[in-house]
Amino acid sequence: MADPVDVAVIGLGSMGLGIARSVLRAGHRVLGVDIDRARVDAFIAEGGREGDLRDVAGDLDAAVIVVVNAAQTEHVLFGPDGLVAKLKQGAVVLACATVEPAFAGAMAERCAETGILYLDSPISGGSIKAEAGTLSVMAAGSADAFSAADPVLEAMSETVFRLGDKAGAGSAMKAVNQLLAGVHCAAMAEALTFGMTQGVEPKAFLEVISKCAGTSWILENRAPHIVAGDYDPRSAVDIWLKDLGIVLDAAKAAKFSAPLTATALQQFLAASGSGLGGEDDSAVAKVYARNAGLTLPGEA
Amino acid sequence: MADPVDVAVIGLGSMGLGIARSVLRAGHRVLGVDIDRARVDAFIAEGGREGDLRDVAGDLDAAVIVVVNAAQTEHVLFGPDGLVAKLKQGAVVLACATVEPAFAGAMAERCAETGILYLDSPISGGSIKAEAGTLSVMAAGSADAFSAADPVLEAMSETVFRLGDKAGAGSAMKAVNQLLAGVHCAAMAEALTFGMTQGVEPKAFLEVISKCAGTSWILENRAPHIVAGDYDPRSAVDIWLKDLGIVLDAAKAAKFSAPLTATALQQFLAASGSGLGGEDDSAVAKVYARNAGLTLPGEA
Repeated sequence: MADPVDVAVIGLGSMGLGIARSVLRAGHRVLGVDIDRARVDAFIAEGGREGDLRDVAGDLDAAVIVVVNAAQTEHVLFGPDGLVAKLKQGAVVLACATVEPAFAGAMAERCAETGILYLDSPISGGSIKAEAGTLSVMAAGSADAFSAADPVLEAMSETVFRLGDKAGAGSAMKAVNQLLAGVHCAAMAEALTFGMTQGVEPKAFLEVISKCAGTSWILENRAPHIVAGDYDPRSAVDIWLKDLGIVLDAAKAAKFSAPLTATALQQFLAASGSGLGGEDDSAVAKVYARNAGLTLPGEA
Repeated sequence: MADPVDVAVIGLGSMGLGIARSVLRAGHRVLGVDIDRARVDAFIAEGGREGDLRDVAGDLDAAVIVVVNAAQTEHVLFGPDGLVAKLKQGAVVLACATVEPAFAGAMAERCAETGILYLDSPISGGSIKAEAGTLSVMAAGSADAFSAADPVLEAMSETVFRLGDKAGAGSAMKAVNQLLAGVHCAAMAEALTFGMTQGVEPKAFLEVISKCAGTSWILENRAPHIVAGDYDPRSAVDIWLKDLGIVLDAAKAAKFSAPLTATALQQFLAASGSGLGGEDDSAVAKVYARNAGLTLPGEA
């Protein structure tokens, strides 16, 4: 086991809490931070460190930022009471939110100005893998940043893709992954509901297609939610408004035409606009079903 | 081993030849039929039966039709010298082309009028699995049709999805599969080339994404062609003009809105229109690359 280090995990949503627990389980001292005080207290009850981030920031070896987007990441690092001003020299920030590659590069530069290391480290795998400490991390940063982050990466992940020394390369790979996962999610919904118009029941769809050339990781992971009529959010529709938006912003800046991404986003927008933004992303199937007069499993 | 039966395989392209060889290997008597006489002679040299289909049709227990589309299937069955008029009562037709579900239903009815059994049996798996006798078959038809087809199905496939007694159910599932495979192929190309604009090399794309939530069967099968710069057609761009066209025709008839399918088809149309119709379907990436001023591996 690595020597215990001092770590803060900022953001105790389902991903952050899983990461905090995994790092704690690996024997490190972990401060959980969240705007929801109940989450913090619950984590302290599990063995998390007590105290206020403002007071203990100078002790930290690493801070894992598991917030929703770029604005929150920037706020945590450089806002009023920003973390960077308080960290000790050589402490490392692991930035896990999905952000534009250019943003990650800019954050790394600003951190470097005050001697703070920055690891561009978006994550993939969902809350179950976060909880188990078996995430995939698409990481990029200096050798020093990797070195400082290693005890935390080891505790939270099964696979670390080391994508070079330039912050932004991790976020670029994450954007590519999100493009595909988002398109695959909407495509799964399109195919499942198209099948219903042709007499293919959702259960048969899942059984057959998951063993054929039409399968995808997302199909195997999400189609069961539709078959079960269970839209409890493991990953919500609104995540795609954000993540496919990031892809399209980066694509536009590069003058890259991404018609499938744009089309998939429209379907998630229709889902969110019709009140499904907080449901599981598989609920994009409800847009297709409604448009075609179909009744999905579990619906009246 | 099943008792030897008399089988004709109509269409000795890469799929049909693989099926013919697999059925021959299983100990059956196999007549290979193709408009290209050289293919027929080559198959006879491998042990195929000699003779003309018109003369031996009355001996056949089964005819496997591995042609490109509905028009060719109908021509083989009911055109001048159509097979159905010559088959003996209780012989079975295995119709493997991707066709609209309604077409499969109509063919089965017309066959039944003269006592010929019809198994709606589109295939999935590509030429390597055809050669190995390990295809997946999405099959639907009467119990008698399945029964008569069993020795052939056993020889040509690893998995037979038995999708009920109504011809058309197999073609419906195949259409669903093609919708996904086609969208996934274009999405893979979109993501790979988008990644290049963000500094992600195609090789790194394949290595990382194939292990992440963005993966699909098609990505793992086709992205290596792009990485290798090898567009020798295992499955050609123009196949998608046909297959996604079938999906959209069936969708339109059902008043089903399929925006991702329609968008993917546009990308394959652009590929075909720019002279890539006969290349491997992964060549749809060339459309994206050209639009974005990118140079794919192996290109000048």
